[in-house]
Amino acid sequence: MGEPERIGVVGLGGWGIALAVHLHRKGHTVSVWGHPTAGVDAVAKARASDRFLPGVQIPAGIAIGGTGSVLAGAGLLVLAVPTQHIRGVLLSLASDWPAGVPVVSVAKGIELETGLAPTGIVRAARGDAPLAVLSGPSHAEEVARGLPASLVTASSDAALAKRVQGAFMDERFRVYTSADVTGVELGGALKNVIAIAAGICDGLKLGDNAKAALLTRGLVEMTRYAAAAGADPRTLYGLAGLGDILTTSYSPHGRNLAVGRRIGAGERLDAVLRGMAQVAEGVWTAKAVRDAARSRSVDMPITDAVCAILFDGKAPAAAVRELMTRAARDEI
Amino acid sequence: MGEPERIGVVGLGGWGIALAVHLHRKGHTVSVWGHPTAGVDAVAKARASDRFLPGVQIPAGIAIGGTGSVLAGAGLLVLAVPTQHIRGVLLSLASDWPAGVPVVSVAKGIELETGLAPTGIVRAARGDAPLAVLSGPSHAEEVARGLPASLVTASSDAALAKRVQGAFMDERFRVYTSADVTGVELGGALKNVIAIAAGICDGLKLGDNAKAALLTRGLVEMTRYAAAAGADPRTLYGLAGLGDILTTSYSPHGRNLAVGRRIGAGERLDAVLRGMAQVAEGVWTAKAVRDAARSRSVDMPITDAVCAILFDGKAPAAAVRELMTRAARDEI
Repeated sequence: MGEPERIGVVGLGGWGIALAVHLHRKGHTVSVWGHPTAGVDAVAKARASDRFLPGVQIPAGIAIGGTGSVLAGAGLLVLAVPTQHIRGVLLSLASDWPAGVPVVSVAKGIELETGLAPTGIVRAARGDAPLAVLSGPSHAEEVARGLPASLVTASSDAALAKRVQGAFMDERFRVYTSADVTGVELGGALKNVIAIAAGICDGLKLGDNAKAALLTRGLVEMTRYAAAAGADPRTLYGLAGLGDILTTSYSPHGRNLAVGRRIGAGERLDAVLRGMAQVAEGVWTAKAVRDAARSRSVDMPITDAVCAILFDGKAPAAAVRELMTRAARDEI
Repeated sequence: MGEPERIGVVGLGGWGIALAVHLHRKGHTVSVWGHPTAGVDAVAKARASDRFLPGVQIPAGIAIGGTGSVLAGAGLLVLAVPTQHIRGVLLSLASDWPAGVPVVSVAKGIELETGLAPTGIVRAARGDAPLAVLSGPSHAEEVARGLPASLVTASSDAALAKRVQGAFMDERFRVYTSADVTGVELGGALKNVIAIAAGICDGLKLGDNAKAALLTRGLVEMTRYAAAAGADPRTLYGLAGLGDILTTSYSPHGRNLAVGRRIGAGERLDAVLRGMAQVAEGVWTAKAVRDAARSRSVDMPITDAVCAILFDGKAPAAAVRELMTRAARDEI
């Protein structure tokens, strides 16, 4: 399952740390670059991040640094920064970035200003890097603790997908390969919007039947959007779409779910975001997807409802009632 | 949304009662037949079933009886008895059964001895009845309380599907139509097996990532089986498949989930079943599906694992480990 290699992780958030711990456990030589706002010096000293992944010890063998030099010599780079910060991080690390080294993106979002997914941002900034994505149901807390998870890695370069699979996979961390980069990447981004909707449903106390129906219709909507962007619909019904929706919408760890729950219970978006230590990608993805869907004439009723609630002050109960009372029709 | 009519509900379990309450609330004239073992006389007197749907008042306008005469004059029959009992109930009611009246099956299982789904059993016993099914994520407790739900009704007779939609639908109970009887019926049956697997995963404390992956792969397996039986795969990814898996696998109301959790935590099947007031359809469906899948050469690794645990004494942890360590491969 893959020879030990030097792997650089870009990003010291919960997922970056969890993957670094996992890759180190597998025998790779791992280094992590962290932004000053992630408290890189304090984390390097404490060997733990109370803010992003409390209770997880970072082994002494993992190098942690705040300058690009910590990535020197890496044969594989794992990009684990929030989507809206990717462009800035790539710019600030430009001179230290190891040229031509494959990049595995694990970010799950859409850049607000451009509508680009993470690999699109990397391609624009670092046209030389071979690209892969790794996504699926994988809350950082559980992966760091060594609980089982199953993910998908996709690349247009089948050999790179195989290499990523070999580098990450062990008996507790199962990795499938795929050629559908667009599907895997959009699955991870779009599910955050649906998870916010699921949280709103929870906050309104609508029950398990309504939440299940919402998620089912949400997946239909995600698939419609991704297919219009060139994805294989089956990818969305796999681990990177459906699988990830489930963890995000039912696990107490879910940040986007938590945002939705507070909104559904009557709080306002600015108040909710002010108190959060970590980024809820879905808030910005919702806006980016709504705009892109409009320009492509793709029907996204749940995403539209989430945006109306988050950004236009629409009452959650009224928005849900409108979704529930659309005209009676055939399911497919 | 449909004129008031006389509707007979066959079955006084939780779902039968909840649907009777819902249909009465919509203005229909509703009567319910109950088997003596459902405590029909006590329920008729108390206007409530502590055993099957505690806390729900059955309105005085709903007739409840233990003989087939209570169904006389019905223009639509709702069949709401557990799958393994359908044949016996149809036999015992044969002389009172209103001939030629459309039957809406809401049972979710596979008959153990014949491998037939509920409509197949009805067709064998009552070849004269037009048939429809109604399924989807719909825990009885929530429907009785008037919380929102979305379901699918399917019939090979499009006019009957429309009629059932009209009879059941209101702003809190949304009904889509479909022509795919096989897909809707198998979705409801097969999800109970996957829910047992999800419960086992919970009982073993494997975490949210593993459960999401299991459900995703479970849906792939359900779809494979249903497609081999002639269903449209998209039906399984809709409310009657995916939607119903979600409610059944994450809601605390789920009986099949509860069975799985206790098995995963180390209890034996006979001890678990002995203490249950209500039927967990998935236990018998698992066995019926495994046998049918073998004879059709359909690969069902999760169903096979559930059967090995339930009936052959296999240790849950070992069965799950084997599922997690199947060879690395492409997702689709």
